[in-house]
Amino acid sequence: MNRREFVRSVGAVSVAPTALMQEPQKPNQENAVQLSQIHGASEQDEKAPGPFLPGRRRVGYAIVGLGRLSLDQILPAFGSSQYCAPVALVSGDKTKALRIADQYGIDSASVYGYDSFERLADNPRVQAIYVVLPNGLHEEYVLRAAKIKKHILCEKPMARTSAEARRMIAGCAAANVKLMIAYRQQYEPHNMALRDRVASGAMGKLRGFISSNSQQQGDPSQWRLNLKLAGGGCLPDVGLYCLNAARFLSGEEPNEVSATLWQPKNDPRFREVEASCSFTLKFSSGFVASCSTSYDVHKSQFLRLEGEKAWAELSPAFGYHGNKLRYSQLQGEVETEFTPQIEEKNQFALEMDHFAECILENRAPRTPGEEGLRDHIIMEAIYEAGRTRRSVTLSGSPV
Amino acid sequence: MNRREFVRSVGAVSVAPTALMQEPQKPNQENAVQLSQIHGASEQDEKAPGPFLPGRRRVGYAIVGLGRLSLDQILPAFGSSQYCAPVALVSGDKTKALRIADQYGIDSASVYGYDSFERLADNPRVQAIYVVLPNGLHEEYVLRAAKIKKHILCEKPMARTSAEARRMIAGCAAANVKLMIAYRQQYEPHNMALRDRVASGAMGKLRGFISSNSQQQGDPSQWRLNLKLAGGGCLPDVGLYCLNAARFLSGEEPNEVSATLWQPKNDPRFREVEASCSFTLKFSSGFVASCSTSYDVHKSQFLRLEGEKAWAELSPAFGYHGNKLRYSQLQGEVETEFTPQIEEKNQFALEMDHFAECILENRAPRTPGEEGLRDHIIMEAIYEAGRTRRSVTLSGSPV
Amino acid sequence: MNRREFVRSVGAVSVAPTALMQEPQKPNQENAVQLSQIHGASEQDEKAPGPFLPGRRRVGYAIVGLGRLSLDQILPAFGSSQYCAPVALVSGDKTKALRIADQYGIDSASVYGYDSFERLADNPRVQAIYVVLPNGLHEEYVLRAAKIKKHILCEKPMARTSAEARRMIAGCAAANVKLMIAYRQQYEPHNMALRDRVASGAMGKLRGFISSNSQQQGDPSQWRLNLKLAGGGCLPDVGLYCLNAARFLSGEEPNEVSATLWQPKNDPRFREVEASCSFTLKFSSGFVASCSTSYDVHKSQFLRLEGEKAWAELSPAFGYHGNKLRYSQLQGEVETEFTPQIEEKNQFALEMDHFAECILENRAPRTPGEEGLRDHIIMEAIYEAGRTRRSVTLSGSPV
Amino acid sequence: MNRREFVRSVGAVSVAPTALMQEPQKPNQENAVQLSQIHGASEQDEKAPGPFLPGRRRVGYAIVGLGRLSLDQILPAFGSSQYCAPVALVSGDKTKALRIADQYGIDSASVYGYDSFERLADNPRVQAIYVVLPNGLHEEYVLRAAKIKKHILCEKPMARTSAEARRMIAGCAAANVKLMIAYRQQYEPHNMALRDRVASGAMGKLRGFISSNSQQQGDPSQWRLNLKLAGGGCLPDVGLYCLNAARFLSGEEPNEVSATLWQPKNDPRFREVEASCSFTLKFSSGFVASCSTSYDVHKSQFLRLEGEKAWAELSPAFGYHGNKLRYSQLQGEVETEFTPQIEEKNQFALEMDHFAECILENRAPRTPGEEGLRDHIIMEAIYEAGRTRRSVTLSGSPV
Repeated sequence: MNRREFVRSVGAVSVAPTALMQEPQKPNQENAVQLSQIHGASEQDEKAPGPFLPGRRRVGYAIVGLGRLSLDQILPAFGSSQYCAPVALVSGDKTKALRIADQYGIDSASVYGYDSFERLADNPRVQAIYVVLPNGLHEEYVLRAAKIKKHILCEKPMARTSAEARRMIAGCAAANVKLMIAYRQQYEPHNMALRDRVASGAMGKLRGFISSNSQQQGDPSQWRLNLKLAGGGCLPDVGLYCLNAARFLSGEEPNEVSATLWQPKNDPRFREVEASCSFTLKFSSGFVASCSTSYDVHKSQFLRLEGEKAWAELSPAFGYHGNKLRYSQLQGEVETEFTPQIEEKNQFALEMDHFAECILENRAPRTPGEEGLRDHIIMEAIYEAGRTRRSVTLSGSPV
Repeated sequence: MNRREFVRSVGAVSVAPTALMQEPQKPNQENAVQLSQIHGASEQDEKAPGPFLPGRRRVGYAIVGLGRLSLDQILPAFGSSQYCAPVALVSGDKTKALRIADQYGIDSASVYGYDSFERLADNPRVQAIYVVLPNGLHEEYVLRAAKIKKHILCEKPMARTSAEARRMIAGCAAANVKLMIAYRQQYEPHNMALRDRVASGAMGKLRGFISSNSQQQGDPSQWRLNLKLAGGGCLPDVGLYCLNAARFLSGEEPNEVSATLWQPKNDPRFREVEASCSFTLKFSSGFVASCSTSYDVHKSQFLRLEGEKAWAELSPAFGYHGNKLRYSQLQGEVETEFTPQIEEKNQFALEMDHFAECILENRAPRTPGEEGLRDHIIMEAIYEAGRTRRSVTLSGSPV
Repeated sequence: MNRREFVRSVGAVSVAPTALMQEPQKPNQENAVQLSQIHGASEQDEKAPGPFLPGRRRVGYAIVGLGRLSLDQILPAFGSSQYCAPVALVSGDKTKALRIADQYGIDSASVYGYDSFERLADNPRVQAIYVVLPNGLHEEYVLRAAKIKKHILCEKPMARTSAEARRMIAGCAAANVKLMIAYRQQYEPHNMALRDRVASGAMGKLRGFISSNSQQQGDPSQWRLNLKLAGGGCLPDVGLYCLNAARFLSGEEPNEVSATLWQPKNDPRFREVEASCSFTLKFSSGFVASCSTSYDVHKSQFLRLEGEKAWAELSPAFGYHGNKLRYSQLQGEVETEFTPQIEEKNQFALEMDHFAECILENRAPRTPGEEGLRDHIIMEAIYEAGRTRRSVTLSGSPV
Repeated sequence: MNRREFVRSVGAVSVAPTALMQEPQKPNQENAVQLSQIHGASEQDEKAPGPFLPGRRRVGYAIVGLGRLSLDQILPAFGSSQYCAPVALVSGDKTKALRIADQYGIDSASVYGYDSFERLADNPRVQAIYVVLPNGLHEEYVLRAAKIKKHILCEKPMARTSAEARRMIAGCAAANVKLMIAYRQQYEPHNMALRDRVASGAMGKLRGFISSNSQQQGDPSQWRLNLKLAGGGCLPDVGLYCLNAARFLSGEEPNEVSATLWQPKNDPRFREVEASCSFTLKFSSGFVASCSTSYDVHKSQFLRLEGEKAWAELSPAFGYHGNKLRYSQLQGEVETEFTPQIEEKNQFALEMDHFAECILENRAPRTPGEEGLRDHIIMEAIYEAGRTRRSVTLSGSPV
């Protein structure tokens, strides 16, 4: 079963096959300004940012949850967005929320508490709700958002379990609202360049994917270490990036999983969740993904794809900044490393802009709820494999 | 004569010596939101962007000139700014200006033509005017802006000649408005880290600075190749970065200059201006800067500082993105290269925010008109040295 | 069970625990020539090669097998050796062997066929026999060499099976000759620097090891693809480097193994042996090694160690040339990558010189037969885990 | 005047134009052994070293002078040589020389003092004399070697002055012996690959060459700081590499020179020679080379070539090890850096083997005395330009 077949099989929001690989069509091109190149033909063209939709026409987002991710990444990202604007905040801390609203020019009347969440229904400026809450609250707030008929961008991991994910998909389908999971790496230029390189066949058939996404977690009281709120430890939080990249970059789906878990006994951080997880995904083509993730490792992030005719490495692969793509293959008779100078862009802006385009043009997002569901099904198989110390065949996927 | 002495000697806007090396004090800290670290102590702290001033309290900029730099870099940079907002545009192309105004949420009433420039005086939202015109128009517009009592951020090179620069400084001083030259690299994090490293003495005494800033220019009709509009060729446009970096990073001033110019006869691009310029700056301490610049070279940008005990390299040094700092020195008994993972920031946002802080707190900018004047004095010596094929002693600077 | 305990437990040649981490004591220091440093103290000392033993005092090696490894690597390596000389050749191709002998100044009387192997006993210049034959012949030739009382350096993998390895250890012990397995990476300067860094505790406790060693195999008729001659496919040939590095660099021994094998049906190269193998080693400390190896991947080689406080990467890690060590950790408040400029040395010369020193000083080699045996025990567990799709506990190793 | 015209114009040993760019034809191919490739076609071919001439047929070298260069680099390099062997030593320190002779298998009867230098004439095994003495002794020993009819490889810089260089060329021509200057970089694979890249036109016309070769000199009593023995300071010792590379890589000759010298008053190391020198070479094509060299800088080595369509960087460019070639140009629409994986080779072995081939095949070396003479003429112009602070036109070279 390949990605498209899977996406079709789980039903819910239907995704036209071609949409999966389709680049966004930019709205508002009529407003663009053209400039001539001042450099010679042997220089890379200077690509202008924008064009930008004026504020009143931008897709308005309500940000739900004002933790680190919202404050450090998502809200600042609107400054680089073409099509989006933050227009409402939902937080349990009114004082903090009002401060932030003031910084971002959000009307204080558009600051809500969790108990008044449903009042977002009455705010015509809110077209999309971005759920940035602990994982254990995703289902509840996605379903509440669907009920008030708003489109939903939900942070990864989509939920705690595949059962939650299925209910979220069903709820959005029933409400006829769009649901997108915030797999920002799928909108990041280096990742997209690598995906295109794979798809072009230049690397030959893919044989290996090797990746790590690990970090040293601190404060034992944080919600990420609370099983009820997080749904797991390092695996759904950071290991998910490796898992998703293996699928996204290859365009293939795994049919067998093996895994090793580690949860030390005396560490207060790991009373409820795993500290480390190494897992191997086997694909029917012979492609194998070897992934490592940990909450007890100094920040370490990379991925390497191995093909018959080339390898490619992305580093740090999953971070917010500084991504570098290298690949190596024969050039003439000499093995040569290539480093394309791909310009960094704000990943959150790209992902929010994609969803805005989907809303403006009534298209399905490239990373719908089904994409998150698939990862939950695989993560459940990883946990089972780790517990049973046996390989687990993915149900519904032919070997 | 060191930088401080020079700055004092040219008079005009007085710059407190300590201000030169002083980091900006952030306004609006009362509005900041604190977040706890979720990572362990062996990880780098996550630094949040902001806090951001709300729009109404931001320093309003009028952007004068809507060429590539304004459209591709400066206007998008406001999205990353903490303290600034674009509030007016001045352009000769009303249609284009209105489109851009719409994209950035600027009131169409705040779009001006060059002939109505002085009406900016009546716009209370405009506190600063950013002059982004061809070099040959800098003097006129800076003086017009000073007359209407607005603070001025002027693109580099400051002017065409030191005479123009002196008149601009005098005009701003007489009008009691601030004048800052847009040396964005002096606000860029990697450059600042390198400057601090030099100042710490960790590299020993500086001996060499080697740098290139070159690119392949295209269209012969562009204003950069027109002597009257540009004031020169590659030297004032891109070579200026090397010159300024040599002074900025070392904190020293050159006292002797030699140079080689190249202007091919049959190339339509170089009928009026030099194609290439290599120049050497000698400093009294023994420090020597060797700089290369060209308009007929594939884009090439870097700088290397050589000290008694270490070297350091910044690459691409002068670009908008992707800067990397490496330095090499003994660690224990092993020569070791170090690459600090310094986060990229938007240089235009940093420079505009610095000027905004200077306005909000009534401080002198770190790169005042005198900084631009000094570079013009040196560039005139470079052209003289190239013409005469002799070294030129910098007047007023002891050998 | 740690490495030392294991080495003691398998008996045979006894290895003093301290010898494992001991740097070679150089023979022939009395002959060294001292030179003063011409550079200042802030420069790395220039380390002279040598001193070199004169030819007549060098340990004489007979090279058994004249395939690519002998011709391309081992014989040229004698040119960089301090203590060794090639003094005899054993080959089935007399013409080729005489040519090679001529090139290396080996007496044509010291060129032997396989049937006259035992005549090496009568050649007093031969002190060591370097077995560079297909894996399936290692046991036979090591035992024949032991019988004629010559010390033996045997290429990796040591054998085809742990049973063969045990017989080889026993045979050498009975004959009282030294047996060393040619794990060249354990003598390579970058690997040793990384091992020392781990041992220093600077990285904190080790949590992860991620590595690949893969290449695109060609000619289906080569012996490496013949099960009887090779004993396996990519795993014992190139995957062994990952396995051995995980043990060598950490100083720990795994107690559980899981694995995935891939052997495509229609590829003539993989009729008898696996094309790819991914395996995971679990260690009792929580350290986990994730290793990938393939014969159907463009040459891809690296290893990454993840500790609590730092990561380190070695690339290409297992190649003959161009190794680079990078590590990343906090320096002050900034995450910083370090690249020590470690000088490349010829790995075969280093490994042969180590064995020569062991012979000259009657010491045990750092990579004795027991080191090879341990790897065979683990590789057998890997194959079993791959076949059964279950984790395999390593017998004799406590969990 | 281009290189070939110059070489012809100075007369002396005639160099066939084509020889300048000609790759060595390997002697002794009849002795080579062929091996089949075991890797697939998408992998780089494994190139075997050798074939090696047997010792008795190798070109025998007498090494004159046993300082650091001979001991640390040249003598060990014979271990990697295909065609050369060390067969005699000349030293003022008999004890040291005998020790070294013993290490390298040189007959103690072939150890000579400087006063018995002429006895080399009677040693039939000596075909070439490698002069590795302080620069001030080069002329004397080259002329003495020529008189006894031995071919001569002379370390760089060739001499102290162009006058000495001319006499050396004349003396060798009169004696009908070959004279080669040891410009090892011209035989180094990365440099050769870059030269070929330039010659292919892939970079467009060359516009800039930027290079530094600097180090921190220690002990003030060393001969390199003695004007009589060294002929100059950093310029002829390390700066020469930049100068020679500018000419070698471009295939062009400069016609104008400017320079800056620095010689601090109170540093005991620089009582007689310059500490730093920055010089600019102007070529008639518009190509400009900007070079920096110092004896008071932490070891810093690199070169960058800037062409119309690409730049290329070699780093450390002039060291014994670790060279890396990178180049950057458009690939499709993306600026891309390329790093070919060129295998490191021993530069001294390559240079000695080239001279050996010239002797065996009676060819002219690629870096004859005329190559050294040209550099001396230019260095004299550099010193004059530094003293007079004016540009100096190179006599005999059209502007």
